[in-house]
Amino acid sequence: MVITMHEGCPKMEVAKVISALRDAGLEPRIISPDPRVVLGVVEEISQAEAKRLSRDIGGLPGVEEITNFEKSWKLASKSFREQPTTIDLGSVTVGGPEVLVVGGPCAVESRENFLETAALLDRAGAGALRGGAFKPRSSPYSFRGLGEEGLKIMAEARERTGLPIVTEVLSASEVELVARYADVLQIGTRNMQNFSLLEAVGDTDRPVLLKRGMMASIKELLLSAEYILARGNWQVMLCERGIRTFETETRNTLDLSAVPLLKQYTHLPVVVDPSHAAGKRELVPSLALAAVAAGADGILVEVHPRPEEALSDGRQSLEPSEFAAMMERLRKVASAVGRSVREAAA
Amino acid sequence: MVITMHEGCPKMEVAKVISALRDAGLEPRIISPDPRVVLGVVEEISQAEAKRLSRDIGGLPGVEEITNFEKSWKLASKSFREQPTTIDLGSVTVGGPEVLVVGGPCAVESRENFLETAALLDRAGAGALRGGAFKPRSSPYSFRGLGEEGLKIMAEARERTGLPIVTEVLSASEVELVARYADVLQIGTRNMQNFSLLEAVGDTDRPVLLKRGMMASIKELLLSAEYILARGNWQVMLCERGIRTFETETRNTLDLSAVPLLKQYTHLPVVVDPSHAAGKRELVPSLALAAVAAGADGILVEVHPRPEEALSDGRQSLEPSEFAAMMERLRKVASAVGRSVREAAA
Amino acid sequence: MVITMHEGCPKMEVAKVISALRDAGLEPRIISPDPRVVLGVVEEISQAEAKRLSRDIGGLPGVEEITNFEKSWKLASKSFREQPTTIDLGSVTVGGPEVLVVGGPCAVESRENFLETAALLDRAGAGALRGGAFKPRSSPYSFRGLGEEGLKIMAEARERTGLPIVTEVLSASEVELVARYADVLQIGTRNMQNFSLLEAVGDTDRPVLLKRGMMASIKELLLSAEYILARGNWQVMLCERGIRTFETETRNTLDLSAVPLLKQYTHLPVVVDPSHAAGKRELVPSLALAAVAAGADGILVEVHPRPEEALSDGRQSLEPSEFAAMMERLRKVASAVGRSVREAAA
Amino acid sequence: MVITMHEGCPKMEVAKVISALRDAGLEPRIISPDPRVVLGVVEEISQAEAKRLSRDIGGLPGVEEITNFEKSWKLASKSFREQPTTIDLGSVTVGGPEVLVVGGPCAVESRENFLETAALLDRAGAGALRGGAFKPRSSPYSFRGLGEEGLKIMAEARERTGLPIVTEVLSASEVELVARYADVLQIGTRNMQNFSLLEAVGDTDRPVLLKRGMMASIKELLLSAEYILARGNWQVMLCERGIRTFETETRNTLDLSAVPLLKQYTHLPVVVDPSHAAGKRELVPSLALAAVAAGADGILVEVHPRPEEALSDGRQSLEPSEFAAMMERLRKVASAVGRSVREAAA
Repeated sequence: MVITMHEGCPKMEVAKVISALRDAGLEPRIISPDPRVVLGVVEEISQAEAKRLSRDIGGLPGVEEITNFEKSWKLASKSFREQPTTIDLGSVTVGGPEVLVVGGPCAVESRENFLETAALLDRAGAGALRGGAFKPRSSPYSFRGLGEEGLKIMAEARERTGLPIVTEVLSASEVELVARYADVLQIGTRNMQNFSLLEAVGDTDRPVLLKRGMMASIKELLLSAEYILARGNWQVMLCERGIRTFETETRNTLDLSAVPLLKQYTHLPVVVDPSHAAGKRELVPSLALAAVAAGADGILVEVHPRPEEALSDGRQSLEPSEFAAMMERLRKVASAVGRSVREAAA
Repeated sequence: MVITMHEGCPKMEVAKVISALRDAGLEPRIISPDPRVVLGVVEEISQAEAKRLSRDIGGLPGVEEITNFEKSWKLASKSFREQPTTIDLGSVTVGGPEVLVVGGPCAVESRENFLETAALLDRAGAGALRGGAFKPRSSPYSFRGLGEEGLKIMAEARERTGLPIVTEVLSASEVELVARYADVLQIGTRNMQNFSLLEAVGDTDRPVLLKRGMMASIKELLLSAEYILARGNWQVMLCERGIRTFETETRNTLDLSAVPLLKQYTHLPVVVDPSHAAGKRELVPSLALAAVAAGADGILVEVHPRPEEALSDGRQSLEPSEFAAMMERLRKVASAVGRSVREAAA
Repeated sequence: MVITMHEGCPKMEVAKVISALRDAGLEPRIISPDPRVVLGVVEEISQAEAKRLSRDIGGLPGVEEITNFEKSWKLASKSFREQPTTIDLGSVTVGGPEVLVVGGPCAVESRENFLETAALLDRAGAGALRGGAFKPRSSPYSFRGLGEEGLKIMAEARERTGLPIVTEVLSASEVELVARYADVLQIGTRNMQNFSLLEAVGDTDRPVLLKRGMMASIKELLLSAEYILARGNWQVMLCERGIRTFETETRNTLDLSAVPLLKQYTHLPVVVDPSHAAGKRELVPSLALAAVAAGADGILVEVHPRPEEALSDGRQSLEPSEFAAMMERLRKVASAVGRSVREAAA
Repeated sequence: MVITMHEGCPKMEVAKVISALRDAGLEPRIISPDPRVVLGVVEEISQAEAKRLSRDIGGLPGVEEITNFEKSWKLASKSFREQPTTIDLGSVTVGGPEVLVVGGPCAVESRENFLETAALLDRAGAGALRGGAFKPRSSPYSFRGLGEEGLKIMAEARERTGLPIVTEVLSASEVELVARYADVLQIGTRNMQNFSLLEAVGDTDRPVLLKRGMMASIKELLLSAEYILARGNWQVMLCERGIRTFETETRNTLDLSAVPLLKQYTHLPVVVDPSHAAGKRELVPSLALAAVAAGADGILVEVHPRPEEALSDGRQSLEPSEFAAMMERLRKVASAVGRSVREAAA
C-alpha cells in the first residue's frame, strides 16, 4: 500500500497518517520525501483490511491518494515516478548528462597495487573506483579477498583521489561493516535474489549498484530493485553484466537491449559492466562504446596494472593505458549521443 | 589441504596433527571420521606455507597422505570417496536401494490443510514431507510463508506421521531456527551460490537438500556442495530441478542427464524435483518415472489437497489421488531398475 | 481450409467437392482417407473468399464440416485427430504398445562395418537400422558420408536382417534418391525449418522422422510437422534430440518434458535420441530408460562396432555389447510402463 | 588444400598448376585472384594423397606455398587474409569507412507500398533496400510472400532510386531466379546450416548476406561462411541478428559482442540486424547506435510506411519518420568512431 501526501502538506499531517497506520499494527516507511511525501506499507494486508484502511486513512487531512500494490514491481516503475532518479556520488551525478565510468581491479590485492591503479584511473577521468574486498567464489578454495583490510585500502585511495568507492557486499551480516567504508554497495550477480541481503542494503543510506543475475530476466531485476526501494532506499543503479547463453566464445552474453528496455520501464539509472560479460579484454572497449551509445548512464570496467599477475579475472582486465585510450573514444561517443564523460587530467 | 590418517590410527595421533595445524594458525576440521580420519584445512595457504606444512605434518605418526586442493571440488568427488554416501532419514536411507519420495505443498498455508495432506501422503507411501515456511519470492509483495508458525505445523505433522520434514532456509541468520524444527534443510535454487548460507548449513548436523541453481552448471552445483562438505557436514543431497532455457512450454527444462552425470562425478545422493521444472501438474508423473529410471535416489513432488486454491504453485501441484496413482506406477519402474519405493498403507 | 466428409459417403460426392475447389483455382489434397475423407486446402485464402467457399462447398452433398486454419498447427493437433497415429514399419508398429529401438552408426563408413553392426543389432532386438549416407557437417572440410554407395550398403543390410532403414536426407533435390533406398526419411536438427525439404518429404509416401531443431520450441516442431502433414503425408514421427543450453557437460540438454508435452498436444508418435543429446556414451543407457519411462514410442541410439575408430560421433556411440545390455534393461522398464521391446535372438 | 602462387606469376604457371590438379581428378577453384592467385581444392583428400600432391605440385614454377585445411574454417580467417574484405554495392562499399544502412519492410506487400517506402528510405540516406519476396514461415498457413512478383517490384524500386536490393533466398533451386533480380542474396537465420543452399549461393557472383542462426555459435557462423568462400564467392557479409535465450522481453537477445569477436577472427564485413533481435520498434534506434559504436560495418532495419498494417513483423518496424530520425543520430555516432553514413537528401 502506498500513501501519497499532498505537495507541501504540513509534517503534522504526515505524522498523523503514520500514527494511524501504526495503530493498525503496520510499520509504514517514508519511501520518498519529495516532491511529495510518499509512505509505503509493505506488510501483506488482506483485501478486506486494505479496503478498511483505505477508507479510514483516505479521510485524513493531507492524503492525496492511496494505491495498493499489485503482485509485481511498483516503486521502480516509470508510472510511479516519471522523472529519472539521479544519484549524487560527489564526483558524478549518475542518471544525469554525465556518464559514470567506474574502474578498478576485480579484487583488491595489495595496498601498493590499488593506490597505483587508483591514481592512474583518476588521471584518466574515471568517476569512481571499484575493487573487491569480499569476493564470491564458486569454489570454497579460491581467494576470497582481503576483507576489512581491503576496505581500508580502498578508503585510503578515496582520500587520495577524491573518487567514491564501489565494492561488493556478500551477506546481510556484513552490510554494516562494508557501509562504514564504501560509498556504493554492490550486489553481485549471484546475490540478485538474496532477499535478506537486498533488504539489508535497503535499510542503509548508501547508493546500491544492483547487478542483474546472470540467469535473471529484466522483470526479475526490477523486482529485486523493488525489494530495496520498498525499504526506503531509492538510490539504486541497475547493472547489466551479461547473461548465460549457449555461446562459449564470451564468458556471458552482454544483453544491451536491457538498456533501452530498462529505460522504458524504470526511472532508475542503468549501468553496464562489459568486462564480466566479455571475459576477454580485447572486446571491452567496443562494448563500452556500444553501451554508452545505447543509452547507459555508466559503465564498470576492470583495470589492473599488470593483468597477467591478477589473482582473478586478469584475462578480462584492461591495462591502465588501454583504459585511458578507451576513455578518449568514450568521450567522443558520449558527445555524439548528448552526454559527457569526465575529462582526463591535463 | 586434506590430511588423511592411517586406518585405525590412535586418537592421540590425530590430536597431535590437529594441534600442529593449530600452532600454524589454522583451524582444521574432521571432515570424515571413517573408515579413516580425514582432516581438512580450508583456509587459503600460500604455496610456500603449504610446502612447509606438508613436510612438517607429513612427518608425524599416523599421517598417510597430504593433498592440496585444486581450484575446484575435491571432497564431493568420487575419487575422494568411492562408496556412495547414504543419508539415514529414519523412514528411508537416501542413496540406498530405496527411492525417497518427498511430497507436500509449496507453502504451508494452514494447520488443517497441512495435517490433512500429510496423512494422505503417509498413506500413499511418501518417505518425507515437504512444505515451505519461509518462501523466497521474486516480488517483495508476494506471500512469504507463515515463518516459525509454519515450522511448528510441520513438526506436528511429523509427530503424527513419523515422517521427516524437509523445508527451505533462506538466510544464514535463520539456520538455527529452522534446524530446531526441520529434519532436512533445503537450499533453494536462488541460493545455490549464497556462500554464507552454504557455510551456515555446513556447520549444522542436519542433512541438506541442495537445489541446483536454475542457471548453474553441474560443476557449479558440485562446488556449492563442496562448501557444505568443507565445513564437515557430509549429509548433502543434490537436487536437479530444471534449468532456464528458451523453451516456454515448461517453467524450466528438467535436465535428467544431470542424474547419470552426477552419479559419475560424486558419491552424494541425487534427487529430482519434476514439479518446479515442469510447472504443469499433468507432466509431473511421467517425469517422476523418468527420473527414477535414470537412476535418481529420490524425487520431490508438490501435492496440494485443492491445487486450485493454493497460494502459490497450484498449477504444478498434484492432487492427493494423482499422487497415489503416480506412486503405484513409480513402484513398478523402481522395481524394473532394481530399486524400491515405500509401500502404501493397506 | 479443411473439409471433412461424412463417414462412408460415396466417392462421387468427394469427387464433386474436389472439382468445385479446383474450379475456384485451388489445389485440394486428401489429407486423410479414413475413417472419413478429409480434404485440405493449404493455399492462402482471403477471409471473403473463405466465406464464399464455405457457403458454396458447404451446400454440396456429403460435406460434414468445413473449418478454417488458424495461423498455427492444426492437422498435427489432438483436437483434429483424437486416436494416436501409428506407423507400420514391418518390424514394429510405431505408436502402438511396442517401443521401437533404432540402432546404428552415425555414418555408414564401410560395407563390412555396417553389415557386421546390423547383424549384431538384429540379434540384440533392434527394430530398425540407422546410418548416415549424406551427413550434414558444420565445416565444408569434414567427411560428408558415402552418398548413394552408403544407401546401397544399408539396403543390403535390410535384405539380410529384414530390418527397415532410417537415414537422413539433406535437401529437396535428394529426396527422390534417398526414398528409393530408405524406409524412413530422417529430417535432421539443422533442417527442421528447411521448409522446401519438409514439403518434399511430405510429397513422398515414406514415413518421416522429424528431429527437433536444437534450438526450436515444441510449438515450432509441431508447425514443422504440419508442413509435412499438409502435403498429405501423415506418417510423421517427432524426435526429441536435445536442445542448446548453457550447460557444457553434455553436448545438448535432453528435454524429456517434450515427451509428455507432445503426447498432450499431438496424435503423432514421439521418439527420443539420447546419443546426440548426451554426447557421451556412458550417459546413453540411463537416458534411454528414462525416455521409455516418460512415455516415448521409440529411441534412436548410436552404435558402432569400434567407437574409438568412428569417423564421427565415436564418443557417444555404444559398443554392441553395451547396446545388448541396455536392451535387457529397457525391456524391464518398458514392461513396467505397459509397453514392450522386441526380444533378442535366442 | 590451398595453393598460393607467387605475386605476379605468369598466367601460364597458374594454368599448369590447375591442369596438374585436374589430372589428379580434382576440381580446383580460384578462390582469390589478387594480390596473389590462390587456388582451392575442397574435395576430401586422403593424407597420403595430400602428401603426394604437395610434393608434385610444390615443385611446379610459381607455387609459393601449399597448406592443408584443418577441420574448421580457413578461408574466412584473418590469418588467411589479413586485409579486410570490402564489397562494392555501388551505393556503398561495405567494409570500408562508410557504414551501410539497409532499410525496408519485412515482406514486399504491394507495389505502391514498396515504392513509397523505397523513395522515403532513399531520401533519408539508406544505402540499400531490403524486402522479402520469399518468406520463411514457421507455419505452412502464414503469408509466404509475393514470390517473383515481389522481386519485380524490388527491381523497379532499384531503377527508381539507384539503391541495390537485398532479399532472401530460401532454397538452392530458387537461387538462379532470385539472383536474376537481387543485388545481394540473403541467407536467413533458419538456413544458416542449409549447406546445399550455401553452396548454391557460393556458386553465384552475387554478394551474400549470411545471417547467424538464432541457435548458432560464432564459430558455426564462420564455418557456414566457409562453405560459401570455398565455392569461390568471397563477397560474404556476416550478420548478427539475435540469439535465443531465456529472456522473453525481447524476441531474441542481440549479441553485440559478436561484432568485435568476428572482427578479431575474420576479414569479412559484419552487419547487425537490431529489428529481428529486439522485436519491438522502440528498442531499434538505441541498438542500431550501439551496433555502429561496437564497430559494425552495416545495419539492417525494418521500415514500414504503416507498421500497424504490416502482414508480418509490424511490431518491430520503424515508421519512415522514425527511420529518418535514427539516421540523424547514427551519423553522429558513426562520426564519433571514425566512420560515416550516407547523407540524407537536402
